Amino acid sequence: VASLRLAVDAMSGDHGLRSSISATLNALNQNSALHISLVGDEPTIRSALAEKTYDSARLQICHSPDVVAMDELPSKALRYKKNSSMYRALELLRDGEVAGMISAGNTGALVAMGCIILDRLPGVRRPAICAPLPAENGFTLMLDLGANINCDAEQLYQFAVMGSSLSKALDGRESPRLALLNVGAELMKGTSIVKEAAELISANPHLNYIGFAEGNDIFSEHIDVMICDGFTGNVALKVCEGTANFIRGQLKAKFMQSLYGKLAALVVKPVLSAFQKEINPERYNGAALLGLNGVVIKSHGGSSAESFEAAIHQAARAVECNLTQLIATQINTIES
Amino acid sequence: VASLRLAVDAMSGDHGLRSSISATLNALNQNSALHISLVGDEPTIRSALAEKTYDSARLQICHSPDVVAMDELPSKALRYKKNSSMYRALELLRDGEVAGMISAGNTGALVAMGCIILDRLPGVRRPAICAPLPAENGFTLMLDLGANINCDAEQLYQFAVMGSSLSKALDGRESPRLALLNVGAELMKGTSIVKEAAELISANPHLNYIGFAEGNDIFSEHIDVMICDGFTGNVALKVCEGTANFIRGQLKAKFMQSLYGKLAALVVKPVLSAFQKEINPERYNGAALLGLNGVVIKSHGGSSAESFEAAIHQAARAVECNLTQLIATQINTIES
Repeated sequence: VASLRLAVDAMSGDHGLRSSISATLNALNQNSALHISLVGDEPTIRSALAEKTYDSARLQICHSPDVVAMDELPSKALRYKKNSSMYRALELLRDGEVAGMISAGNTGALVAMGCIILDRLPGVRRPAICAPLPAENGFTLMLDLGANINCDAEQLYQFAVMGSSLSKALDGRESPRLALLNVGAELMKGTSIVKEAAELISANPHLNYIGFAEGNDIFSEHIDVMICDGFTGNVALKVCEGTANFIRGQLKAKFMQSLYGKLAALVVKPVLSAFQKEINPERYNGAALLGLNGVVIKSHGGSSAESFEAAIHQAARAVECNLTQLIATQINTIES
Repeated sequence: VASLRLAVDAMSGDHGLRSSISATLNALNQNSALHISLVGDEPTIRSALAEKTYDSARLQICHSPDVVAMDELPSKALRYKKNSSMYRALELLRDGEVAGMISAGNTGALVAMGCIILDRLPGVRRPAICAPLPAENGFTLMLDLGANINCDAEQLYQFAVMGSSLSKALDGRESPRLALLNVGAELMKGTSIVKEAAELISANPHLNYIGFAEGNDIFSEHIDVMICDGFTGNVALKVCEGTANFIRGQLKAKFMQSLYGKLAALVVKPVLSAFQKEINPERYNGAALLGLNGVVIKSHGGSSAESFEAAIHQAARAVECNLTQLIATQINTIES
């Protein structure tokens, strides 16, 4: 395996270094082909690394004193945070010093900086955030999850092309089944934008479009990629997480209510833990910013070290399978 | 308690008479003040009632031979289905022969017929579908759940007024806490429509607006009423149901995988059943069509007898607390 170098934005996200350092060291341990540039405040990173053991030949530190705040306006971050870890990591990617980057920071800022520093791939209107959600068939890729609040039909169509490419490349699905998220499966349903997008997608013989789908179909084994605008996608993602958390909480409370329940909880704990691991959003961490000229993986803002590490491995896989080139070719084939 | 008469659309919905008859008889049993007009094909209804015992003084049959199909275009239903159970039940309501109606039929047709037969309340732009979703504080009312695919800011504002009225009337909440569903809590987030709606709602001193909320906040104990357009609301509702079903299925599979799991399942079964009852959408059945000149309750298309009965009780409560008058007054106070 050829060596591959990634940039890790070490300072961003709710937990900053506390997640990124352990994630980086574990990822290096897991994948011996991996080299990582930790981007952030050098003295702070050095002291965080002080007591740790790692292969120093595969770990570089790249100094940048600033951090983009989680609630910072993207336009302000773009203007005033050129010395931030996020900005610098994207520059390393643009300059070819690394083959991909990972950040748990402010999504809006990451999209904005990505568009400016890396640029979009030729023909791509807007990048989209794409992540896997748990489903009957393992998972369903869903995009856009929030980069584009308003989308027209052509954007939804490009999301279909990019999502299909990601599914082929990362999941090895030969002909990923695409669906458009809507309020009903019938052709007459939905907004004019969704209907127009359906026409564009179904007219393309390279896409395996299976039609409209509803919110509950995210979990269906018959769908590989679900397409929607960023507003709907963001709400859907959070409703999904919220429902899972709510049910977990209710189950726990239910178990604790009676002595019988407490005993049951004891017996059932290993079963529930195995299940929790399975639907754990941490395992599904690592959203891809598709449509940029380079591999950019976004980790949850509140990523633990475990989920941050999953995002690093995701970036490595995207680099290994030439995701960016693949999307560029697909968009080009289709647009021309 | 004064007697109250409701019309039940007996033929519509996936299960038609199989749900509506048992639901009606059980509801009559539960509530001695209740009178019901069963609307549908008289011979079929008569034969379904043949072996049953019930208080015939409180059960009327109102003949209408046709049924609106679940996948029928609302415009077509409106034109060609004037002899349908849905149409006739709405006419009974318009003519003052009943005080409310319940249907498990085609939502689009129900909204369209409701607008034409009953008309909207003065000042109301469009009716909205409002239903309770399970939450930390019992439930959160959410609207619109699919009557209006495209909404402008003023419509969202009217939904806030109507949802607040429903929460006051049915749940007895004095000052229901309203939130607008968005992709982030910060003021800068979201579409221009959502931002404009936030300004309209927060400018009204009669509304207790607490700001933007995200998809996972549906389950929060700090929100009583969640406002959104019908596209987003419909997707959110179905994602919520889909997630709950997916988790139930996964848990079941997990329990069955090992002998240990099977034993655990045995012990845990009563706890899980109690929980399933709690998050059961059946218990939360009975969406209100707000903004029409009359109490119209929509039951799930796939309603069981149990959930259909819940919808009947919901209609009775809405009549008892004068929901329609309350909304009319609120909309008027606010608009003038």
